[in-house]
Formats: sequence, C-alpha cells, structure tokens
Amino acid sequence: MTDFDMSLLLADATHLAELLQRDELSSESLTLQTLKAIERLDPALNCYISVYPEAALAAARASDERRRQGRLRSPLDGLTLAVKDNIDVAGMVTTAGLNIPADSTPAEHDAFVIAQLRQAGCVIIGKLNMHEAALGATNDNPHHGRCMNPHRPGFTPGGSSGGSGAAVAAGLCALALGTDTMGSVRIPASYCGVSGLKPTAGAVSIGGSVLLSRRLDNIGPLARSPRDLGLMMPSLVQQDHACAQSRGLSLASGMKPVEQLRFAALTDVSGVDTDISLAYTQAVQHFIQRGAQVTYCDLSQFDFARSRRAGLLMCEVDMYLYHQPQLDAHPEYYSDQLKAMMQWGVGKSAVEALAADWLMDDTSVQLAQLLSNVDVLLLPTAPQTAFSFEQPAPAGQADLTNMANMSGHPAISVPMGISPGGLPMGLQLVGQRGADRSLIELAQWFADTAAGQCPLDPQQLLAS
Amino acid sequence: MTDFDMSLLLADATHLAELLQRDELSSESLTLQTLKAIERLDPALNCYISVYPEAALAAARASDERRRQGRLRSPLDGLTLAVKDNIDVAGMVTTAGLNIPADSTPAEHDAFVIAQLRQAGCVIIGKLNMHEAALGATNDNPHHGRCMNPHRPGFTPGGSSGGSGAAVAAGLCALALGTDTMGSVRIPASYCGVSGLKPTAGAVSIGGSVLLSRRLDNIGPLARSPRDLGLMMPSLVQQDHACAQSRGLSLASGMKPVEQLRFAALTDVSGVDTDISLAYTQAVQHFIQRGAQVTYCDLSQFDFARSRRAGLLMCEVDMYLYHQPQLDAHPEYYSDQLKAMMQWGVGKSAVEALAADWLMDDTSVQLAQLLSNVDVLLLPTAPQTAFSFEQPAPAGQADLTNMANMSGHPAISVPMGISPGGLPMGLQLVGQRGADRSLIELAQWFADTAAGQCPLDPQQLLAS
Repeated sequence: MTDFDMSLLLADATHLAELLQRDELSSESLTLQTLKAIERLDPALNCYISVYPEAALAAARASDERRRQGRLRSPLDGLTLAVKDNIDVAGMVTTAGLNIPADSTPAEHDAFVIAQLRQAGCVIIGKLNMHEAALGATNDNPHHGRCMNPHRPGFTPGGSSGGSGAAVAAGLCALALGTDTMGSVRIPASYCGVSGLKPTAGAVSIGGSVLLSRRLDNIGPLARSPRDLGLMMPSLVQQDHACAQSRGLSLASGMKPVEQLRFAALTDVSGVDTDISLAYTQAVQHFIQRGAQVTYCDLSQFDFARSRRAGLLMCEVDMYLYHQPQLDAHPEYYSDQLKAMMQWGVGKSAVEALAADWLMDDTSVQLAQLLSNVDVLLLPTAPQTAFSFEQPAPAGQADLTNMANMSGHPAISVPMGISPGGLPMGLQLVGQRGADRSLIELAQWFADTAAGQCPLDPQQLLAS
Repeated sequence: MTDFDMSLLLADATHLAELLQRDELSSESLTLQTLKAIERLDPALNCYISVYPEAALAAARASDERRRQGRLRSPLDGLTLAVKDNIDVAGMVTTAGLNIPADSTPAEHDAFVIAQLRQAGCVIIGKLNMHEAALGATNDNPHHGRCMNPHRPGFTPGGSSGGSGAAVAAGLCALALGTDTMGSVRIPASYCGVSGLKPTAGAVSIGGSVLLSRRLDNIGPLARSPRDLGLMMPSLVQQDHACAQSRGLSLASGMKPVEQLRFAALTDVSGVDTDISLAYTQAVQHFIQRGAQVTYCDLSQFDFARSRRAGLLMCEVDMYLYHQPQLDAHPEYYSDQLKAMMQWGVGKSAVEALAADWLMDDTSVQLAQLLSNVDVLLLPTAPQTAFSFEQPAPAGQADLTNMANMSGHPAISVPMGISPGGLPMGLQLVGQRGADRSLIELAQWFADTAAGQCPLDPQQLLAS
C-alpha cells in the first residue's frame, strides 16, 4: 500500500491537466502524491538535488483556489514542474551540479522561463540532478551522486539533464526543464523513454541559467508525451519581446498531413548500435508506410566526432570564462576532472578556438543544406541505449544531437520502442527553424501511430 | 578641354539613371566618359587596381540596345559600377589588396551580389584599391600604392574601402561596392564626402568576397547620394532565398515623418575632434528643429577602444585561418606588417579569443538596448576628418563604427558638411535591424534639408 497513485503520476501532463480542469483531481493532491512518491522512490533514483515541499504545497493550494474561482491562468495551472539545477528558481540554491553547499545563498530571481511558467500556474517541486556543470552525458555526479535510470537501476539516465529525464519517466514531476548544449535534453529523453525538445535557437530565453556555451546553450522541456511539450511552449517562448517572433517562431498549430511532408533519412547508420539501427529503419518505414515522402541522404562522409569535439572545446573555454571568478574563490566546488577539462581549454590557442567555431559554422551550413529541400530530418537520438555506470561512457553519445545546436534548428526526441535488451530508444526529428510547434505535433503523431512509447510499469517501479 | 563632362560624372546615379531613361545619355557615352576621366585623374588618385575598358564598353552597348528595345532590366541598367578588389568579378583578378600579380588566374564566378548587379544591367568598370586585406583604414597600400582623397591630395580617403570612397567622390564610377567589417564602408564615405551603407547583418550575401571576419563582414554600397544606395538595394539583398526576409528586411518605402521618429544622440562626444563634435551637435539640432524627438544618452562609460580591439583580434585570427594555405604557398603576397598582425593573433590563447567574442556580444547587447526605445541612433561616423599620409593613423578611426558590425544593425554614413579645415565630415545613422530602406530615406531627407553635402568642384578636381 502506498499513499500515492503511481498510475496517476505516470499519466502524461495533458491528461493530468484534464483531470484538474474537470475537478477530478486537485493540484494539492497531485503535489502531495508527487512529494510522497519522491520520498519513496528518490532515495534510490536520486533525481532531485533539492525538494521544496512547503513552497510547492502552498503554490498548489493557490492554484486550487484559482480553479475554484474560475481564474485558471493557463492549461499548466496546478501541474507540477521540476527544474534542472542549472536554472535559477528564486529562493532555491542553484548548484549547476557543482559542489555548492545546500545552505548557500539561494537565487534571488527566477530565470526568465521560470517566471513565465510560475505565472502560468506551475507548481515548482524542486531542483533536479544533472551532470556536473552540464559538461557530460552520464549524470555520474561526483558531488550529488549518480542519478539512476528508472528503467534499470545502475544504468545512466543520460545527461546532462539526467535528473530531468529520470524524474519525468518515474512520475516524480509532471513536467521538467533541462538544458541542451550538445544534446543534453534529447539524450536523457531517449535513454529514459520520454520526450524532450531543443527549441529553435533564441526562441526560449536562456536568461538565468548557468552558462556552458554561449553559442550552443538552450533551455528545453521534457515530458511524458510530445503533446505535453506543446502545452508548455506558450509559456517557454520569449513573450515579452520580439525575439521569438523575429526568429520566425510560429506557435500556431500547423502540421501538414504526414503524406504532404518531405523527410530526409540516413542511408548509412554505421557507428550506431544494431538495435538502434534496426529500430530507426523501422521508424523510417513507418513514415513511408503512412505516405510520407522520404529521401535518403548519405552522411557517411560527415565527421560527427570532429563536430562534437569542436563543440566541446568551445564549451570548455566558454565555461572557463564564465566560472573563472567562482573557480578562483571556491576551487572545492569543482571536481578535479572538470578542472582538468577547463584547463585543457585554457591550453588551446586562439587559432584552435576559432577553427572550432568555423567548423561549427560548416556543420550548421551542412545541416541547413540537408534541410533545404525537406521539412524534417529523421535521425536516431543517440547511437546507443542507456549503459551501466560500471562501463566507460561511449565517446559519441552526442554525435547525432550536437549539429542542431550548431545550426539552431529545433530537434525533438520521441520514444521509438524498447530494445531487445529492455531499454528505451529515441527517434530524433529535426525541423525547420521556427517550426517547433509543427515538430511537436509530428512527434505526437508518431507516438500515437507507431506505438513506440516506453511507459514504466507502476508495480515494477514501486518494487525496484 | 577634356573629352568628358566632369559635372555630368559628378551627378548622382539617380540623376544619371534619369538621363539614361530619358535617352538624354547613352550608357556607352557614360562609360566612355568615365573611362576617359579615369585615364585623366586616376594616375594621381590611384582609385583603381584594374580597369576593364573593353568589357565595360561591351556591357554599356548591350544596355543601350536593351533601352532601344524597351527591355531595361532595372533602374540600374547602364550605370557604371566599380568593385572593391576583395569581391569576385568573373574574369577579373581578385587581389584583396595583396601583392597578387595582375596576370594571376582571374575569378571564375561572380560574387553573389555581382551576379545580381550584372543581371540588373550594371556596367562593371574595374576593381578598386583598398587597404591591404581590408585590415586597416588608411589605404596606404604597400603593393598597389596609396589611394588619394579627391578632396586633398596626399590625404587618406579612409579605408579599408578607400578606392570605393575616392572613386565615387571623384566621379570615376556612378556606384561602388565596398566591404565593411569594422567601419570600412562608412569611414571612407565620411572622409570622401559620399554616402555609404553597412546593411543589416545577413541581408546582403558576402558569398564570393575575401573573408576578414566571419562575424563582422558585410558588403555595402557607396554612392554620391543616399537615394543612390536605395536604387541599389533591391539588387543587393539576397533575392534567391529567404534569408533577407527571415532577417525582417523590408524594402518597402516606409520612412515615417521625422517628427514621428525617436532618435538617440550622445551627450558626451569626447574623444572626437572639435570640428566633428561641433558639426555633430549642429546635425542633432537640425533633427530637433524639424520636430524630431531626440533623447540624449551617455556613452562616456562605454569602452569603444576595447570593443574595437576585440574585433581586431577576431579579424586577425579569422584572417589567419582563411589565408593560411595561400600564406604558406605565397608569402610574398603579404606585407611584413600584415604577417606580423596575423602572427599576433596566432600568439593569442583560446581564452583570449573567446573573451573577445564575449565582449562583442556585450557590445551588441548594449547597442540593442540603446536602440530598444528609439528608431535611430545618431553618431559621428569617425572621430576625425581625413589626415595626411605623412601623419601616423589615429588608433580610434573605427571606434564609432565597429559596434554596428557586432550587433548587426544597419548603419549609414551621410555627409554633414565640410570642416573648417576644408575636409568632409560624416554623420552616422544606426537603425533597427531590417530597416535599411527607411534609414536610407532618412539619410536622403538629411541630405535634402541640412545642406551637409560635400560635392567636389569639377574645375578644381581637373586642375589638381
């Protein structure tokens, strides 16, 4: 017996929002059950770095009061939200996964997106575990501990937004925010069997988040269905100025029927594990069978690893520039490994740094050319499924995701089934700049028609 | 007696286009007179690196034939155009101001803008002198010689598009193209008493030009009136794809009446020569007297020189990356001074390079904030007038122009009178991104109402 309904907590946010709107569920009950589930499951999963039960319950009761008065602020009003710990929430400490003590000065202001989501009525539960400083994709955090993949204890949830992927998958929040610099929203979405979006560059303000790379950083949402991401979008885009609009971002529902869309898919998926390759081929077939026009393109000449290493160098140098004052004052906040990575960047020359930036321009142009004659590019999200923390992390985790950060195109990861080894796999859809909403709708179409979803069994989750 | 009409050649291109359209002038006559004027004046002025009389006359006769058949391609059809020598014109050698022999392999293809201007009917006369590799603002070119300011022999025309400014001022072409990385179109426009535009970033393709800085480079037009720049704009913007449109570029005539426009002006113009400062104050007064709303802003805390130095570092490193193969194969193409500047960039670290890029981001944000509540920012174009080649070049020539390259805003230089010393001065108008056309119309309004124009006296020019 538990004092929370695990099946309810594993429903998608859109369904929870419907229950709230129909008065079949209160935000207080949802929040309380979520807190109980965290109490029960998080000691093993370790998704959260900090939880704020009192503030969350107060926000939930205020939402319920608004509902009673018929003054709900948005479809998000009363839904629980958890936030990757490199995004500021007023009153909560921002660690960015560093060894920053829990009694440090909390953030004074909400990040731009947090202020908007709070205004929309979201109930903020707490801050989520992440790879140290967001520079890595395993979430093997030396200060806050490993975050576990809810699909398999001892396995990585991916990263750097590992806590976000795991908490959403395990029902420990309705919605989550992550950040995505080279794939850090999409990779954990793929490993944990949930959906995650890297929005069009500039569409979502990164104000109030801890910098990893000026050029590549994005804040993006993770949820249990693509439609949940769509629910969040109006509160994520930069509503207070013309930036989002100037980037051509359209929030209007506007997905063409699949048979009118043009897709590009890879001929050669070498460098990708066989399970992923097979599932990807089947996913592409699914589009073809439903009447989509698919053009195959050959990316076998493209040096994915070189592009990733260029991005990594930019991150290390940008990070150093951003963290330097804190690094000098509090070297104990940083692991030796992270210090070594920054030092590696410091040892590089101006020519190497700008050559890396040039290479990213080239990658950006190549992706734009690939997308010049099609609406959507289909890719695996990651070259493999989640792996054991006891294994060394594969180097190429972000090989298929980093390009969209360089080019600014929106990219979504949606589940494409469970591997023979029992772990979730992700399909990545890369769309035209500004077409975030259409991409979300297309991903929901895939979720609805292709049966690729990877829900966790409530009983199994509770038994683990 | 001359075999060309200097007064005619000094008319603005819009007037010449009217004469052509009324059949009061043929393109062949205009081209022939221009070639004669070049023969007569250019040995002293040294605006041109190469002239192609036969190709020009053939193009002029073809234009005349189109006129006879009533098939003119655009208002530019039959007008003479000269091109800074870092922009490819098919069949002509591109030197970029380096020591590249005249019998080297000519460019195979037109740069993107050249193809468009040629298609519009422009008669391409030749390639214009410039500061070596566009990295400097005096046009004291070690390989192709000094280009002289037509307003005063022995004085710089400015740079790096010095040949463009001087040729336009002296009537040696109707229209010219330059490139502007830190101010290289606007500074020579200011020193030579003509008009020059740095367009909104991305609005005009830089494809087919020799790179100086990926982030800062622009191709921009120079002409004897702002309205001439307006005549060129439809053939400059990237017509074959959505880029210009996606940047919000509007070519529709849309200038509001001046009394409905909001302007920002500087309270503190220290660091600027007294002559310029006085003329600038009078120019601002002109706007106020005509009913414009002017807000004064204090930029005395802004470190113009630091921003310029950051841009310079990026140029030196980007240049090195671009030129390296040619530098290795042909070290004799490059002056020792230019080699030393590139070597200075090579000696910098990754942290210094990216710190410079960060600083440019800061500058960009500051300019955007300054422009968030006004339509147009008024600035002097350069802190001084043209100076003698015998004097050392002032360090801060690009201090007031480089910001718009960092932020991507369009900026135009329009004459604001002759200094007590007898040299032209330039007013710079920085506008909203995409509002290039409105900015041109506003500059024309200033030229029409403020009597700041600096025409050369034909007799004096011929006597010099």
